[in-house]
Amino acid sequence: MSDEELRKRAIMVSEAIGRLLPVVRPEGLYDAARHLVDAGGKRLRPSLLLIAAEAVGADSTPLVPAAVSIELVHNFTLIHDDIMDNASLRRGRPSVHVIWGESGAILAGDTLYSKAFQILAATPAHHERVLGCMEMLAKTCTAICEGQWLDLDFEKAEQVDEGQYMEMIEKKTGVLYGASAWMGGMLGGADQEQLHGLEEFGRLTGMGFQIHDDVLDMTVSENVLGKRVGGDILEGKKTLIMIDALSKGVCPEIFGRGEASDEQIREAIVSLRRSGSIDYARRRSEELVSRGKDALDVLDESPAKALLLELADYMIRRGY
Amino acid sequence: MSDEELRKRAIMVSEAIGRLLPVVRPEGLYDAARHLVDAGGKRLRPSLLLIAAEAVGADSTPLVPAAVSIELVHNFTLIHDDIMDNASLRRGRPSVHVIWGESGAILAGDTLYSKAFQILAATPAHHERVLGCMEMLAKTCTAICEGQWLDLDFEKAEQVDEGQYMEMIEKKTGVLYGASAWMGGMLGGADQEQLHGLEEFGRLTGMGFQIHDDVLDMTVSENVLGKRVGGDILEGKKTLIMIDALSKGVCPEIFGRGEASDEQIREAIVSLRRSGSIDYARRRSEELVSRGKDALDVLDESPAKALLLELADYMIRRGY
Repeated sequence: MSDEELRKRAIMVSEAIGRLLPVVRPEGLYDAARHLVDAGGKRLRPSLLLIAAEAVGADSTPLVPAAVSIELVHNFTLIHDDIMDNASLRRGRPSVHVIWGESGAILAGDTLYSKAFQILAATPAHHERVLGCMEMLAKTCTAICEGQWLDLDFEKAEQVDEGQYMEMIEKKTGVLYGASAWMGGMLGGADQEQLHGLEEFGRLTGMGFQIHDDVLDMTVSENVLGKRVGGDILEGKKTLIMIDALSKGVCPEIFGRGEASDEQIREAIVSLRRSGSIDYARRRSEELVSRGKDALDVLDESPAKALLLELADYMIRRGY
Repeated sequence: MSDEELRKRAIMVSEAIGRLLPVVRPEGLYDAARHLVDAGGKRLRPSLLLIAAEAVGADSTPLVPAAVSIELVHNFTLIHDDIMDNASLRRGRPSVHVIWGESGAILAGDTLYSKAFQILAATPAHHERVLGCMEMLAKTCTAICEGQWLDLDFEKAEQVDEGQYMEMIEKKTGVLYGASAWMGGMLGGADQEQLHGLEEFGRLTGMGFQIHDDVLDMTVSENVLGKRVGGDILEGKKTLIMIDALSKGVCPEIFGRGEASDEQIREAIVSLRRSGSIDYARRRSEELVSRGKDALDVLDESPAKALLLELADYMIRRGY
């Protein structure tokens, strides 16, 4: 039921992307900008924006451009992150920089960034509300950059504690979910209390989503994941799983090695399961989502609110 | 006299950057973002915005944040361009990617991009005018990406004609000058005709500025230029000078070679001077600036308008 509702909004967003981000001259640039966007993805963030607007009593149909702007920002960050992480696969396709080179990928990302602001600016809503969203989106992009910087710093750091990790994923992932829910509320006419609750809901469930993503990196097959299993271990990413494992004196041999055989990766994952670190991360993601759901107490009951609560559960139940 | 007026505004902009873009956590990111901004530059674009507002009768003092946003966008494009062009020097300093690596430079640029929109959104002016400027700035950033993509394409292209070159510099350089003048007018309360004239003035003089920049690459010493003399020739850039030379069958041996001795670079420049190609580019830049000045006929006479006209001349007279 909820899957159906999500799919409906995901389709609206995908159709609007085709219309709002047409492939114009220079075609190469727009092909590169569309490559990852067209590869799909679950459109969770834009759907969250639309449902948040509905949950404060608005018609979300005219707000699809704002939802698209969120999806474009998300894809822009993925394209630039893949360059920095030297990741060659994303959503089962070669990364943008693999096909168009680093320069092409930098520009494709930059283009999505500015297109997002263009499209958001043209959302049919009160000027003050749109301007508020523009400011929120810009602030959010700054925080995402800070989060990615911290993430890169952590790879070089001797030790990262859980507090530092939480700050990093809040910025890298949480704030964009927070902004999605906030912007939906803002455009839909929410009051300050509702805006605060929606932002918190998005931010906390987004953080839960990120931790769940770290878990999936070790528990799902490459086919489903769309990228190499255990990639985080090879890259030496200090995920919550690794932070917990290291605190227990467990460190897989291949951690940060860049390359390893499938057998070695399997062994590393088994050691992290045995130390209880994968389960620990799973529990933390559940806690965050639970706190996020509590933040929605400020909203009156409605089908849209029920859908938000379902979406939150889905974010840490999904298998991909 | 005009130098004095320009300097005054440049100082206002530089001071405001220190205030509006503080170095906060993670410090490394903000150090990287500030590196090039703090290296100076002439602040021509933000000054243009401020003077354009004055030329339609407004007090430009409260509009300094909008001017800063233009300067940050300009610096963001330089940081990313330097990665793509593999340029190691800028304003006499090592490029951002030389110090912080490519990942650091990508993120520093991305941060300036979002900070620009944040700062612009907080400019104290009518909401509708600010929103109009946000949309203009986003549209302009998209065009800049398109221009840079064309520029990279041209390096690989067999042949580039003057029309293609003009389209490229219009997007890569012209539109940001156009947006600067337009935004100053918009925030200052200009009418549609004035806005059109201001945009055209900025865009055409900006194009003249870019062609003059190509000329400077071959006529000014490294000390003054802040980067390697003849760098465009080594990189195989199809500047207007090279397009004219190639059309006359003149092609320096070191064109696109990446490296050469100072003596070889000197010889290459002499051959381009003999073919008349450097003079040709100079004349074209003068024509563009002259047409740009004509577009200001829509403005009433004022000291600020006189300053805009002087600024236009300065842009192609400057020796660095």
